[in-house]
Amino acid sequence: MSYNLKFRFAGSGGQGVILGTIILAEAALAEGYQVVQSQSYGPEARGGSCKAEIIVSSEEIVFPKIETADCLAALTQKALDQYIGSVAPDGIVIADSSLTIPESWHGRTEKIDVISTVYDVLKKPMTVNIVALGAINAILGVAGDKALEEAVLARVPKSTGELNMRALEEGRKLYKK
Amino acid sequence: MSYNLKFRFAGSGGQGVILGTIILAEAALAEGYQVVQSQSYGPEARGGSCKAEIIVSSEEIVFPKIETADCLAALTQKALDQYIGSVAPDGIVIADSSLTIPESWHGRTEKIDVISTVYDVLKKPMTVNIVALGAINAILGVAGDKALEEAVLARVPKSTGELNMRALEEGRKLYKK
Repeated sequence: MSYNLKFRFAGSGGQGVILGTIILAEAALAEGYQVVQSQSYGPEARGGSCKAEIIVSSEEIVFPKIETADCLAALTQKALDQYIGSVAPDGIVIADSSLTIPESWHGRTEKIDVISTVYDVLKKPMTVNIVALGAINAILGVAGDKALEEAVLARVPKSTGELNMRALEEGRKLYKK
Repeated sequence: MSYNLKFRFAGSGGQGVILGTIILAEAALAEGYQVVQSQSYGPEARGGSCKAEIIVSSEEIVFPKIETADCLAALTQKALDQYIGSVAPDGIVIADSSLTIPESWHGRTEKIDVISTVYDVLKKPMTVNIVALGAINAILGVAGDKALEEAVLARVPKSTGELNMRALEEGRKLYKK
């Protein structure tokens, strides 16, 4: 059986989408996959949106550029509008509950309540990428819970470990809802 | 005039080479270049070495995978030995002064005293990627000093800003020596 996922994570600068994809990449690596994690900076990056990508595969990754994504996760309306055109028709769009899905999108959509969770439940806006990651991984099944937890702990400041474990768990619960 | 650089940064896990290339990518972006920053995780990543790459270009980057690097910067012997075979013959190898350059390499070599600087001068081993970055940017001329400083400050914890500015300056000085 072969596994191949092209995942794009987009939001505004400061939401930690690059770190989010690095953590997911490292969790996928721990699960035995080959992974390429990347971000392109060009004229579009100056617009204020930030995106990062990973390819997760059970085989060698020959061409590591993502044209069409299997999944887009977007945390801001701007990022959603900017990247929804490059999601495969049979792909998945994961979006914060506050966002409006463009009418052009007819595929599978998962709304997750990330923004209000970090403000109202955790009261720590900085954990937005980790809450999102918990939900994204629950939806996509990239890595087991333990591999993802360890990948998060390896990348966040030690003093925030406990908070980030709570953030991950809140994120996981968002999908179960 | 067109500019194109394929740069690979390699060391052991924990030396911050991924963050190092992200910072250099963001400094190059501020200088007006297009940039792709990436890291591949596969069977080789399990060996303990860590590498990350950037492509900096004045034009659109069509194929973002680095096969042959224009420059390899290595912080450990293992990483140097592992990646020196994929440096272009007219490329540059930047290596910590403590390392032994393999006999197979006949191109330009720049030895920089990063490891002893972080232990003996700064007494902060965690700054190894930033010291290296100061030297690497002095050698390659990717970004101006100001753009690089701002890129570092945007990515390190606020409380470590001053320390990291010192680290960058010590790195710069290593190349002037």
